Amino acid sequence: MKIRGKRPHVVVLGAGFGGLSATKRLGGADVDVTLIDRQNYHVFQPLLYQVATATLSPADIAVPVRSTFRDRKNTKVLLGNVAGIDRARREVLLDEDRRVAYDYLIVATGARHAYFGHDGWEPAAPGLKRIEDATEIRRRILLAFEKAETEEDEERRRELLTFVIVGGGPTGVEMAGAIIELARKALVRDFRHIDPSSARVVLVEAGPRLLAAFPEDLSAFARTALIRMGVEVRLDCRVTHCGSRGIEIGEESIGARTIVWAAGVQASPAARWLGVEGDRAGRIAVDERLRLTGDAGVFVIGDTAAAQWTEGRLVPGIAPAAKQMGDYASLAILADIEGRMLPPFRYRHRGNLATIGRKNAVVDFGRLHVKGLLAWLIWGAAHIYFLIGFRNRIIVMLHWIWAYVTLRGGVRLITGSTELPE
Amino acid sequence: MKIRGKRPHVVVLGAGFGGLSATKRLGGADVDVTLIDRQNYHVFQPLLYQVATATLSPADIAVPVRSTFRDRKNTKVLLGNVAGIDRARREVLLDEDRRVAYDYLIVATGARHAYFGHDGWEPAAPGLKRIEDATEIRRRILLAFEKAETEEDEERRRELLTFVIVGGGPTGVEMAGAIIELARKALVRDFRHIDPSSARVVLVEAGPRLLAAFPEDLSAFARTALIRMGVEVRLDCRVTHCGSRGIEIGEESIGARTIVWAAGVQASPAARWLGVEGDRAGRIAVDERLRLTGDAGVFVIGDTAAAQWTEGRLVPGIAPAAKQMGDYASLAILADIEGRMLPPFRYRHRGNLATIGRKNAVVDFGRLHVKGLLAWLIWGAAHIYFLIGFRNRIIVMLHWIWAYVTLRGGVRLITGSTELPE
Repeated sequence: MKIRGKRPHVVVLGAGFGGLSATKRLGGADVDVTLIDRQNYHVFQPLLYQVATATLSPADIAVPVRSTFRDRKNTKVLLGNVAGIDRARREVLLDEDRRVAYDYLIVATGARHAYFGHDGWEPAAPGLKRIEDATEIRRRILLAFEKAETEEDEERRRELLTFVIVGGGPTGVEMAGAIIELARKALVRDFRHIDPSSARVVLVEAGPRLLAAFPEDLSAFARTALIRMGVEVRLDCRVTHCGSRGIEIGEESIGARTIVWAAGVQASPAARWLGVEGDRAGRIAVDERLRLTGDAGVFVIGDTAAAQWTEGRLVPGIAPAAKQMGDYASLAILADIEGRMLPPFRYRHRGNLATIGRKNAVVDFGRLHVKGLLAWLIWGAAHIYFLIGFRNRIIVMLHWIWAYVTLRGGVRLITGSTELPE
Repeated sequence: MKIRGKRPHVVVLGAGFGGLSATKRLGGADVDVTLIDRQNYHVFQPLLYQVATATLSPADIAVPVRSTFRDRKNTKVLLGNVAGIDRARREVLLDEDRRVAYDYLIVATGARHAYFGHDGWEPAAPGLKRIEDATEIRRRILLAFEKAETEEDEERRRELLTFVIVGGGPTGVEMAGAIIELARKALVRDFRHIDPSSARVVLVEAGPRLLAAFPEDLSAFARTALIRMGVEVRLDCRVTHCGSRGIEIGEESIGARTIVWAAGVQASPAARWLGVEGDRAGRIAVDERLRLTGDAGVFVIGDTAAAQWTEGRLVPGIAPAAKQMGDYASLAILADIEGRMLPPFRYRHRGNLATIGRKNAVVDFGRLHVKGLLAWLIWGAAHIYFLIGFRNRIIVMLHWIWAYVTLRGGVRLITGSTELPE
């Protein structure tokens, strides 16, 4: 390993769970670390849906990255967009012609929405990966009720009071449950001309069941629970068009002014930067030590990586997996500097969780499946545990207690334009 | 008074302090009330500067209006922009061709920035009246430090690390103090290539002293305190130009990428809607019962009104005044319905407050002037007291305790674009 300068320089791209874990572990070591992200904060993505449904504020689930590392003398933080990676010269190219040289590189740039070739649907059907997505969705949801209150035309009013979520994974299930609860509990006495609880919430899934990554009994439980809450669950339905007035499922149209896209993810453009082929979701194949094939100084982790797990499956794109990979990559780098090599990476799957609504969730521990109130408490505890930042943990717990006791999210603000896309 | 329909219909325009107070008092009475605002929330303007300097989140100082009135059966809330007022037909014209008939009208539409004929300065020098203003200013301030961290050109770096506030009233003083504290305390260990405490904060006032509405000793105290904190205070300096790279004061240029406008306010366009002349700040003259001259059913209150106080002065444009006027107008309407008339409105000036920084403020009680730590505690208590919403009071107090103990604002997020205007 060619070492330039005094100490090896590790560059970490992305301040999500993977990048943050790696940077933390390198914190006190005999290396220089530069963490680069295009935002100045880390966002706790699993709770974005609560920002989108007006229970939490953006600042409750985001922590400024500089704050986190201010006292690590060897760690530097840069705000920047990656434009490319020059592997020959071992440099990362950023916007504004900046170049950052590395001895080791950890690529942890995450995932973004995939529209299966229909990127034109995005303006009508935003996804939920960033803070701006969540506040935009919140804006549209709350505005839809406001506009419906004074809308005289009945068909237009129906469209305003119809909400479609595309995709039956955890994000889709959580959004559907949260919107129906907003309509039937939090907003229910706020309007005079409309009855918010008459709002239609439609969850559309192309496959045969919700929560496809979960065992069948938990999928069935989630479906029954959502239906009992008033959500219309449509399985085996593939969306063929999304526009500003609704969706189409083959011949059928559903008029809706608010559509949330939770149906597909693809990796960041890291494959292109590194000059390698990505798989069909753009993920980069890595070896059993999370390194790019043939380039032992470059690690790829988190949602951008295609890492082998068991039985031909890939390590799932969930937060605990990214964290484990970030920990491993940083320890592997430290070992390599000392001339050692770690055993291969082994992902330890602790379980999968999804919340459905108030006091209702599902948790898959492998052999043990938990449903209902107990699962919801486990879900809450796990999310508080993984949330980064003591202050944020306190704040989120207080917000949740408030929302639970008063049945109201406290953040029902429409910020930005008061117009909906036409 | 011509009464249409079953009960008199009172329309309130604006959900600020004036409009909200009036609507609350009409809550249980034998009238129908419609409250109209172009946002769906009430914002506690005195604390906007804390959103702008990343100590509080928007949701901490805003409360959804519908929430506040959900249980008042006679009160309806509408989201809408006023396009005009047809006094002959007694109707308010809203956007989207909506018309709302009134028997009584309370105009409480507040104030906006005034640029003294230079509206073109606004993009470079935003004011601080709305949530979006505050988050935009926050974005620019935090981004300026981020850009400075990687800026190689020394002059450009100086410009990025220079912050200008135009206007030495309470808002300007509070912003200047908060930005210098951000630079010298909260951010001080967050960067590696720049020293944030080297940032220049320049407060420019056209008149001979800061806090012109306060007594001279408190003005002098504020000036000395700001200077000791590191703010450059420029008095008797009138800004002659604002652009994206800085300001000009006559021959002198100060290069700065962040400019905050706190120098002038003008009333909402209500004078135009009502078809009357406004004064030089657009405010509408009202009689001693806060009514439009010659139209006993129309009240104008708050920052949009020019109401006589004492000795030729007008009732000041501060929150407690708006609240008193809102209370009076609603009671006057209820009295009028019963055929009674209230005595004229008398504004009770309780005092004026402005904060300077951590543990430092000034409070003017008329004969009693308070400075320093005690004033700061009074300032804090008064703001918590006037904040609307129990939840918000708890949240703001917790945020303040956190910021006080840790010396860090907790909301240092750059949301939106990561580009500065060029």
